[in-house]
Amino acid sequence: MEAPEIINHTYTFDISHADAQLLNSEVLCQGALRDLIAAAGMTELQSLTHQFSPQGVSVVSLLAESHIALHTWPELKTGYITLTTCKEPNDDFEGLATEIIQKAFTASTVAMRKLQ
Amino acid sequence: MEAPEIINHTYTFDISHADAQLLNSEVLCQGALRDLIAAAGMTELQSLTHQFSPQGVSVVSLLAESHIALHTWPELKTGYITLTTCKEPNDDFEGLATEIIQKAFTASTVAMRKLQ
Repeated sequence: MEAPEIINHTYTFDISHADAQLLNSEVLCQGALRDLIAAAGMTELQSLTHQFSPQGVSVVSLLAESHIALHTWPELKTGYITLTTCKEPNDDFEGLATEIIQKAFTASTVAMRKLQ
Repeated sequence: MEAPEIINHTYTFDISHADAQLLNSEVLCQGALRDLIAAAGMTELQSLTHQFSPQGVSVVSLLAESHIALHTWPELKTGYITLTTCKEPNDDFEGLATEIIQKAFTASTVAMRKLQ
């Protein structure tokens, strides 16, 4: 009995040596996620944010194609973003996403891992 | 320059040959995620659900330890759940999670993948 196939991938972007103040801004974090959603060619349905005390932000957006989320640790100048999707992102997504994240958080390192 | 380390893992559980009606129930999907959060020893902060038309459910919960999400395709009797976390789940999580998912959706197959 063959299972019908639902392709799903998770892309993880590990951010380090970034700007603490930018990593702690809910508005900026949401903006970065929206730029990534556009770069992937996906559609946002609903979004949720959480501001941790004394610092740290989590944002998650449900997409028509699954979800994307971001979690930051400003005190460590780090964070990570995962895109989990049942649809292949646009061809140039991996490079474009790295560039968007580097610029948004002035991060000197963005490393990508992929689960497929 | 060494980056401060934030450990993060993604566990993906691919569900197949499950009950279509159960996969299409928002309430049941939310309940299954809450059982998984408890099994992992994690804390839910906020939750978001989306019912697709004509069928399909997405649920995502922000956790104190990152996030967990579920996406279902009742018409294919499939779905998947991802737990993305900055903290190791409880030791018995992998086996317990598989059992929780199998029972919740009467799924004959639950396959786990891990990105670390």
